Order: sequence, then structure tokens, then C-alpha cells
Amino acid sequence: MVGNAPSGSLVGVIGGGTMGAGIAQLAVQAGHAVAVYDALDGAAARAVDGIAKRLDSLAAKGKLGSEEAEAAKARLTVADSLTALKDAVLVVEAVIEDLAVKQNLFAELEDVVGAACALATNTSSLSISAIAGGMRDPWRLVGMHFFNPAPLMPLVEIVEGVATDPACRDAVSGYAEAWGKTTVRCRSTPGFIVNRVARPYYAEALRAYEEQTADFATIDAVLRESGGFKMGPFELMDMIGLDVNLAVSTSVWEATGYDPRYAPAWTQKEHVAAKRLGRKSGRGFYDYAEGAAKPAPGYEADRPARESGPVGAGAFSLYRSSGKTATSYGDGRILVDLTLDDDMTTAAIAPAADTPEAVVEEAIAYLQGTGKKVVVLEDVPGLIVTRTVARLVNEAVDAIYRGDADEDDIDTAMKLGVNYPRGPLEWGGDLGFGWICEVLDNLEDEYRDGRYRASPLLRKLAYADRLMDH
Amino acid sequence: MVGNAPSGSLVGVIGGGTMGAGIAQLAVQAGHAVAVYDALDGAAARAVDGIAKRLDSLAAKGKLGSEEAEAAKARLTVADSLTALKDAVLVVEAVIEDLAVKQNLFAELEDVVGAACALATNTSSLSISAIAGGMRDPWRLVGMHFFNPAPLMPLVEIVEGVATDPACRDAVSGYAEAWGKTTVRCRSTPGFIVNRVARPYYAEALRAYEEQTADFATIDAVLRESGGFKMGPFELMDMIGLDVNLAVSTSVWEATGYDPRYAPAWTQKEHVAAKRLGRKSGRGFYDYAEGAAKPAPGYEADRPARESGPVGAGAFSLYRSSGKTATSYGDGRILVDLTLDDDMTTAAIAPAADTPEAVVEEAIAYLQGTGKKVVVLEDVPGLIVTRTVARLVNEAVDAIYRGDADEDDIDTAMKLGVNYPRGPLEWGGDLGFGWICEVLDNLEDEYRDGRYRASPLLRKLAYADRLMDH
Amino acid sequence: MVGNAPSGSLVGVIGGGTMGAGIAQLAVQAGHAVAVYDALDGAAARAVDGIAKRLDSLAAKGKLGSEEAEAAKARLTVADSLTALKDAVLVVEAVIEDLAVKQNLFAELEDVVGAACALATNTSSLSISAIAGGMRDPWRLVGMHFFNPAPLMPLVEIVEGVATDPACRDAVSGYAEAWGKTTVRCRSTPGFIVNRVARPYYAEALRAYEEQTADFATIDAVLRESGGFKMGPFELMDMIGLDVNLAVSTSVWEATGYDPRYAPAWTQKEHVAAKRLGRKSGRGFYDYAEGAAKPAPGYEADRPARESGPVGAGAFSLYRSSGKTATSYGDGRILVDLTLDDDMTTAAIAPAADTPEAVVEEAIAYLQGTGKKVVVLEDVPGLIVTRTVARLVNEAVDAIYRGDADEDDIDTAMKLGVNYPRGPLEWGGDLGFGWICEVLDNLEDEYRDGRYRASPLLRKLAYADRLMDH
Repeated sequence: MVGNAPSGSLVGVIGGGTMGAGIAQLAVQAGHAVAVYDALDGAAARAVDGIAKRLDSLAAKGKLGSEEAEAAKARLTVADSLTALKDAVLVVEAVIEDLAVKQNLFAELEDVVGAACALATNTSSLSISAIAGGMRDPWRLVGMHFFNPAPLMPLVEIVEGVATDPACRDAVSGYAEAWGKTTVRCRSTPGFIVNRVARPYYAEALRAYEEQTADFATIDAVLRESGGFKMGPFELMDMIGLDVNLAVSTSVWEATGYDPRYAPAWTQKEHVAAKRLGRKSGRGFYDYAEGAAKPAPGYEADRPARESGPVGAGAFSLYRSSGKTATSYGDGRILVDLTLDDDMTTAAIAPAADTPEAVVEEAIAYLQGTGKKVVVLEDVPGLIVTRTVARLVNEAVDAIYRGDADEDDIDTAMKLGVNYPRGPLEWGGDLGFGWICEVLDNLEDEYRDGRYRASPLLRKLAYADRLMDH
Repeated sequence: MVGNAPSGSLVGVIGGGTMGAGIAQLAVQAGHAVAVYDALDGAAARAVDGIAKRLDSLAAKGKLGSEEAEAAKARLTVADSLTALKDAVLVVEAVIEDLAVKQNLFAELEDVVGAACALATNTSSLSISAIAGGMRDPWRLVGMHFFNPAPLMPLVEIVEGVATDPACRDAVSGYAEAWGKTTVRCRSTPGFIVNRVARPYYAEALRAYEEQTADFATIDAVLRESGGFKMGPFELMDMIGLDVNLAVSTSVWEATGYDPRYAPAWTQKEHVAAKRLGRKSGRGFYDYAEGAAKPAPGYEADRPARESGPVGAGAFSLYRSSGKTATSYGDGRILVDLTLDDDMTTAAIAPAADTPEAVVEEAIAYLQGTGKKVVVLEDVPGLIVTRTVARLVNEAVDAIYRGDADEDDIDTAMKLGVNYPRGPLEWGGDLGFGWICEVLDNLEDEYRDGRYRASPLLRKLAYADRLMDH
Repeated sequence: MVGNAPSGSLVGVIGGGTMGAGIAQLAVQAGHAVAVYDALDGAAARAVDGIAKRLDSLAAKGKLGSEEAEAAKARLTVADSLTALKDAVLVVEAVIEDLAVKQNLFAELEDVVGAACALATNTSSLSISAIAGGMRDPWRLVGMHFFNPAPLMPLVEIVEGVATDPACRDAVSGYAEAWGKTTVRCRSTPGFIVNRVARPYYAEALRAYEEQTADFATIDAVLRESGGFKMGPFELMDMIGLDVNLAVSTSVWEATGYDPRYAPAWTQKEHVAAKRLGRKSGRGFYDYAEGAAKPAPGYEADRPARESGPVGAGAFSLYRSSGKTATSYGDGRILVDLTLDDDMTTAAIAPAADTPEAVVEEAIAYLQGTGKKVVVLEDVPGLIVTRTVARLVNEAVDAIYRGDADEDDIDTAMKLGVNYPRGPLEWGGDLGFGWICEVLDNLEDEYRDGRYRASPLLRKLAYADRLMDH
């Protein structure tokens, strides 16, 4: 039986890389004795030195008492072998993402530690069930997925494999909470919560780019300034590393049997093949060379002020994007992309093929008159924010449908793990699941590639919406 | 020219494993001299000893005359090399499922045996065309797919590659018939008949489980007691071995270019990764540990008897499942899953989101009053038996559409190879191909993932049904 | 800065195979000094000897002045190392299709050649971006895709990776034009223009065969004699080599994330596995053994002449194929497959399941009376030419949609690269994009597998067609 343990008790961390060191720092700051083990000679010692320096630095900045810092450093040791972890109350593994390596490690570890020791893996991409598949007691293993940098990021995903014992899961979750983290629970499915639900954020932007809807900077601006996201997808991928982001996409795609929802984009693969990996390589979707100009989004130039009526009235007709093209309506309408709320500073519109140029001018001038910057997009189905949010909601609903996680945990995960302005289920409720389903059905009717297929649960929520309307 | 040969003539069997030994036993009991060859030292001798023991055992039970048994044993020899098979009238290969190994074997064998010798491979997953691709005379090779255990299972699939000569095929088929088997003919396509047409039986149950429709035991019960299948899919996969079943699914899926119809289910992959392989590993979908309780299906508790009208009348409305959700109709209806016939002991129903609880109670009580056990499922499209049977029929029709096998052979194969209560084409005819097509179209409208797409031939049969109605 | 260079300047060719030798011949005939390098001992010398012989042969036939031939041969040398190419104005690489080999080669080469040297790769299947990914200056690399045989085929695809500098692209393009080739520009996407847009030509024929619509010879005849293509797809694949054609299909399919549009056909994979590779192996879809009879297309026997009305009138109703089956209309109609123009010599028809036999006879006799041969096909959706042309147009439109190439270049490429009777965009314009889109939508409604999904741009062109009709 495993359970929470008194402060001062031993936590083992296996793997002295960035994640391992971050986790060790968290544990030692929370009052545990911490032993770091790394199979590579000297790596654990380097990790321990690094943590000590960060503790000193925190003390120097007054964020940590100097006695506290000294005491924490004194509780931090290098383990020369797994055997040194035998009295641990918790061991967290953070070695390379290699199934066989992790399987062997836990098979060895379960013979070293006591029955009360909780066993956790920080894997982000492997199945907990598969890692536990090499253990005598697979029910002991729990996923404990920290985000980088672990000392700062508030979220930990607590992941159950098919064999995981609920008491073990609760014990691991308890440690994360005791260290100040917010935890969410999910089943061991590809990408867990965050890395799965977030896939459309990148995929839809990449598709919009490939469809020549707009350039990188404009798509980023629309998602920030109309969608309300903190960072645009291209600047975010540049920060994460295009290769890292592609590896996550590919891993989810493969694990789902090449589900077209998760198929990696050609553009991303090309950039990675071209070694344009993002900030770390000096160039990704953007150029980070010294002196490189940051491209400006394609805002419309200011039009002279004119008088005009409100949306839906006057010479032009603005309609909210529906997942169809403006052209398909045959009435010259202009579509407006989704906005998070009225405070958004940019409006993205798409005229139909048969919208007269003068009418487009009217609409631009009108929107600029309301104080917003205006972007004119190609008339693609679902524009940018509309299709992105519809798919994020659908992913979240589908995760519920399949019992992978519950509603609150998904919303919490997306707000804390990737800073979304609203949890996808909350967002879907605000917009109406009926509308989300209609947008997706329209998109699927346009594309017919399975990418926008609505979760059966979303369709049921849509029917329920409709029933409630009567 | 190859052809049937007199009793006492030599049959060579290559491979001393379970299948090889079973085939050798069949041949020797049918009156042939049999020589078993295995490249592994001692393996052929062990196979021959095993067959001899089984013959003795049959004699001891009186199922075989003791003189016959002695004579059979006397006709059974170990071949030290392929050359020992040079006078064979038939050689059946049953070595490991490795394309290169089989290609090399047949390339060598065709130089050893005479022109009149029939050459057969017992492969279950490789292409006959590909195995024959290494031969000088590829028209000689025929697939002869026995089921395990070969001495008992009545079916043999006779499989043609692109080069197979019809006379060779008929000769191999003739041997199988002479040994008491029923043969069916098919082209060399992924999974041949049985392993291809049967895929939906596992896939739909796994999807129903993943959609939280019901638990393993309830799904198994519904397919047995409402669908009329001998074994539920989960207990059947536990018996077959989840890894073996997954390997077949994966092989068909890969060979069809990742057709979403055949994509392996995450749940099955997770169980295999977790080493929950079924009976043989002590745990699969069910627990076979000593003393483990077998979970009971989720039958509704008995309701007090009440008076009520027949299906479609009274306070509640029962409709047959159509591939849509009950909720989608917006009229509070309750759907009933497909049943094989009136003798079925369980009724599975799904109320809509807007069916009042009291009405559901009425329906349960009414059905219990007819003597049936009742299971209440989540309101998923196509429930359990409906979607399973619709897909089995579609697979069978598609096999005809593509010229892979004919109607009678498919029905025979599914009844003898996997014990189905009715051949899928007979079943489709009984239910009406128009209705099957409607169910699939409704399912595809709900899921839009290509899994339920109707075969063009099914659609034509549906049109023909409609025309005949006029 | 790279640019065109005076005649007599040095061109380096790396790789002494068929393509490399062909390119070297082109360059030397155009007046360049040419140095051929091959890592394999003696290969460059053999290439140079071969070119010299071809020049002699041209001179012997009077196609080249003998002084010119001698001068050209004198300009042709073997390079013993890459260093020998240091003064080149252009280096064209034509080694094996192996990414790492090409990456290493260009990484080495960019340190050898001067800043003004243009660098080109003749890859047909690898990403230019990926090959350039190993270079210090990836903007220097350009794809220069010749078709086989390079001295004769008029087309060169000039391919840009994500980093390619437009000036480098134009320089490489300039050389190809100076050597008498027509160039088209495209982005580095799977299959470039020709190998991507042409995929449906093979895929639809293979599907039609798998659906038992007709045999190889009849399908070939219909595409030649009703569709206007120079060669039928099966005879063309036999010429190209089934394995080569399959490798291209597989490469495009993999690079697009297993897009069902490009999934290789089982029949083709089976033939390749069976080593039926086409002319070069003596058998492909057809038998090339000595004395093997070429199978005749399934033309209807001549019917006695009768009087009958025009299409759409009289006892029978002929309608143009629409992507639906004849049977689906329920009015006994007969569908006629698409023809290139009135000069076509064969008409392919498909009667519905409810067309009376006598009516079919009337239609056959009527069509024969107009001087055409008649083929009666199975009633599959989109028949043969209709579905093929609809998909070719869709591929071309989708390439424009994604910015991969422009309209004129695509039409030019398909006419010069694979001899199509009309450019797909010109063809689509003639038939009407609205009709093409309707055919594809009908096909997708029948198959629901994503293969016939219309490009969003095609749908917009269809809406525009409709708007223009008002």
C-alpha cells in the first residue's frame, strides 16, 4: 500500500536532465529528502549542482530564506545506484522516451523499493500501460506528467494505465498537490489531455497557411487578437521547437491508427526537414537572425471614416463564419471570424467571390470605425478562429465521450497547461454545442476527409440543445 | 500436371509445429504415407511422436481401430531433408509466417519434387502471390488454410494467388475434401475470407466499449443472447489471445493501406502492451486468476409485472435500431437492438435523452414480461448487434463485389470457420440489403470516418430491393 | 549570386547512371564543357563512353554534324573527385534516391564550388527542402527534374524547397531552357506536378479493375478510344515498370500522411509481389512471353443495323455518366462514359439493373450505327473515363489551391510530361468545373472514403460557375 508520507521522507528521481532536475527541485523545496539517480556517470551530480545553484539564486533574490535554501541543499543527494532509493516513498522517472528503457527500469525498481513506495513516470508520449507491461505489479505505476519548466508550470497530469490501482494514482496525485501543483486525472491515451486536445491549434493554422488563407504573421495575429489566445500557433511552435511539436503530433497520429484528425502537416514536415526548427535553430516559421525584421500581420490600411449601419444592416451584410465559404451562400455576404469577446482588437473577414469590391470597402471602413484592426482573409471554410475553436471543443467533448478525462479536468488542463483563454468545454457551452456541431458538419461537408467529424457526444449535445430550444 | 493420387501415396509436410502436426495427422489418417520435415533438429521427430501418441489415444478411446492406428503410425516418417519429399504427390508447408523463409523454401522445393506434385502453403496472413513470387513456376502454389486445431476444424480455405493455375487449385482442394474437410475458394486478399469478414465482430465490440456503451461482460452477453453468436467477442479474443487477434487485425489493416474499416482499437493495443493477452496470460479482458469472479452482465433487476401493449404501442415506443441514436429522432423513442430470432433471451434497449424515466421503466417491465432479460445501453449509433451485423454483411458483400469469393463460400466459411449462427449473406437477405445499407449510411452520417461506408454492391442491392418493392 | 554562363563553361554532373548520362549529353550538346563524377570506380568513364557512342550514332544518322560531335566529345571528361567540379557554373546531381547520400553530397559540394555555381538535384521523389537541410546555404539548391529519356523528353520540372532563392531557381531554369527544354515551376511537394497529378490515371483504372468493371484490355481501350489518352494505364504501367510506378504511388501516399487519394492498389501490390513487373520481366498486367496473344478489348459483336433516334430519345435513354450508378436513378437509363471529343472511336455504356435487355440491344445497335465500337461496362459509379478525368482535374485544381504550381504550368506539364490529350485545367474548363464537382460529390457519396473529395477551390469554382449561370 502506498500513501502520502511525512515531510523529510525520501523521494527518488531517476534522470538528471531538465525535467528530472526540475522535479527534484520541487520535491526538495517541498521538504523531502531527494536522491537523484542517472545511469550516465556524473549526470546526477551535475543535476544536483544545478539545483543547488538555482536554490542559491532564489535565496539571493529573496524568494527563499537562506536557511531554507541551505537545508534543502543538505537534503539533496546523488544516488550511485537504484539501491540507494530503497527507502523512498516516491520514485519519479524522467529518463529518455524509450519504451524498453523505461520498462527495464521499473522492472528493476519494483524489486528495490518497499511496498509503500509510489512509482511514477514523467513520460509525455508513451503508454503507461505499456511501461507497466514489464512489471510484476503493473498496478503500482502511475503517469505523472509535468510540463516544462517543472518548477514553474502549475499543471501535472496524473495518468492511469489499464492496470493502475486507484490508490496508487491518488498517492501520486497527493504528492503533486503537496508540491503546489494543480492535478488533473486522465486515462493513458495518446497525448493524455493537453497534448491531445491542443493538436487542432497547430493543425488548423498549418492548414489555413497551406490553403493560402494568410501568412504566418497574420494567422498568428488573428488567433491572438480575435481568438484571444496568448500566443499565435506559429510563434508558439517556434518557441516549442518545430521538431518537438512535430514529434508529438506524429506520435498521437500513429497511436490513433493514422486518424486524419492528427495527420502532421506537410508544411511542418518540410520546415523540420529543412532544419528550420524555431528559435533554437535561428529560424522556424519566422527568422530569428540578428537584424531580421519581424513580419507585420496583413492589417488593412486605414480607410477614411464613413457612416454605416450595424452588422447585418446597411450596404453590406456581415455574418458569423459557419464553416461554409461566403461564396457558397450566393448572396454576396461577408463572413466574420469568431472572436473571444468584444474586447478583441482585430476583426478578420472574408468576402464572397461575388461581393462587390465597394461593399468590401464599406465593411472594412465600418469595422475600422468600431476601433478594430481589420484583416481580409481568403474565403476558406471556417476561416481561422472558427475552425480552430470548433475543433478544440470537439476534441474535448470526444475525450469525455471516451471516458479519457472529465469536463472540469479538461478545462483546467487547457487553461493551465497551454494558457488557453477559456476551457474548451466552457467555450463550447458559451457558443452552443449545437453551433459547434453545425460548424463541424459544414466543414466536413466541404472537406470530406474525416478531420472535422463531430464526436457522437457532440452530436447528442447538439440534439439536446435543439430539444431545449423547443 | 498435378492431380489427386491414390491412397498410400506420399504427402510431405514441412514444419513440425501445431499446424504442421495436425495436417500430417489428417493426411496419414486419410491413408497417405506422410513425411514430416523441419529445419530445426529434432522438431520433425517430436511432431511424429506427438502424432503417434494422438493416434494411440484415439485407438484407446475406440475412435480408431488399433490396426488402423498401427498402420497409420507405420506410414509416418521423419524426412531428414527436402530431398526426401521428392516423390510426394502433395507438399504442405506450415512453417513460420515469414515471407522470405517461405519464398526460399518453395524455390528450393520446386526443384526437388516432380511435376505432378501439388504445392500448398498453410499461411494465414501472407499473400500467396508474394510467396509464389520467388518460384520459377508460381502457378504451382496454392494456399491451403487450415484452422486450429486442424484435425477437428471442418473448414479449409483454398486460396489462389494471381498466378495460381486452376488445376493446381482443384488438386489441393481435392486433397482437403478427401481428408473430410469442407473447402471454400477465395482469392489471395488480406485475411482471405474468415479473417477478413470477421474483423467487425471484434472491432465493433471494442468501439462500443470505448464509447462506454456497456462493459465487456454486457457486450458479450448482448451478442450471445440477442445476436445469437456462440461466444461474445471479448471472451473469444481472450481465448484466441489478444496479441494473436491484434496481429491479424494489424496485418489486414496494413495490407489494405490503413483502411479505417480495419484499424486496430486502442483498447486492444493497450491490453496487449500491458501483457493482458487473454487466458494464456491469466488475464485479458477478463481475469482468469484463481478465484477471480466472472463479472455478471449488466441485466436490469426484475421490475414488478405490469400490463402493457406490444412493441410500438402503449405508453412507450420501441423501434428497431437504425444506426441513428434514439435522441436524434427528438420524439422520446426507445431503440431495441437487433436480435437473431424470437428465441433470443435478452433484449438490449437504448432510451433517448428525452425519454422520461417512467417510460423507460414501463419498457423494461414490458420486455421482462415477455420473458427476456433486459440490458439498457448508452444511446450510441447502431447499438451493439445492429452495427456488428450490418458491418459483417457489408464485408461479405464487398468481398463478392471485388471477386474475392462467392456467396455460398462466404456463408459456409463464416458458419464453419467461426461458428456464426447464420451466414452473413443469408443474414443480409433475411434482414433486407436495403435496411442494412440504411443502417450503414446512418452510421456513416454519425461517424463520418469511412468505417461504415457501404460497398457499392450493397448500395446496388439496396436499389434493387427498392425497385422490387414497387 | 548564380546566373547563366557563356557556352563552353563547365557543367558538372554527379552520377553516371541513365539520368546522369542523359543530362550530361544534353549539356555537352548545348555547348558546355561537362565533367561527370561518380563515386563508383569506372562508372563515370562508362557514362562518358556511352555518351560518346550516342554522339557518334547521331552523327552517323546525320542528326549532328561530325565536327560538332567530335567537339562535343572533346568537351566531355571524367571527374576523379568533386574537386574537379570547382569551376562549374552548374552542377546537377543524379545519384540514387537516398536522402542521406544526397544531403552529404551537397554539403560537401557547396564547399567545393564557387559562389556563382548553380546547384541542382534531379530527385524525383525526395523533398528539395530536406536535401537542402544538410547545407550551409540551403537557398542554393534547386530541383531540376528531367524525365526519362532526358535527351528526348521535352519537360523539366523546376522545383523550389522552402529555402530556395528565386534567383537560383531562375538560373537553373535558364539552363534547362537553353538546352531546349520546356520548364514548369512548382513547390517541393510529393510527386511535384506530373507524378502527383497523374496518380488518378493509374488508381482509377486499378479500382475499376478490382470492381470487375472490365478487364485490363477493355479498360485500356476505353481510356484510349473514348478518353483520348495515348496509352491505356495498364499498358503504360507495364512500360514504366509496375514496381517503379508503385514506388512513386507509395512515396506520394506516405508523404501525404496516407491520404486515401493516393493509396496504392492491392492489385498492383500483388502483381509486384508476384514479380509481374511489366515488359522488363516478361509479364505485368499483360503477358509479353513470345507468342503470347495480346488480349482483345471486350467490344460488343456487331448488331444488325436498325433505325433509332438520337441520344436521349427513342426506346432507350442514354445519359452522360454523372458519378452515380445507372441503377440508382430507378428509371432504367443507360449511362455513357465521357469521351474526349466526337472523333473518339469507342463508346462505353453501362445499363442499369432494371434496363430491359432489349433496350440495351437497341442502344448498342444505335451506337454501332454511328460508327463506334461499343463496350458494355459493369454499372459502377463514374465508369472509367468520367471518374478518371474528374479526379485529374481535381488534383490539378488542388495543386493551385495549395500554391504548388500555377494553371499554365500544370497543363503544360501534363501534356509534355505524360502526353495527356488536354491539360487537366483546360479540360475542366471545357467540361465545366461545376459538372466536375458534381461528379466528384456523387462519387464521394457512393464511396465515402475520401478519395473523391473535391478540393475547396473546385467547389468555389463550381459556385462561381453557378453564379455565372444566373
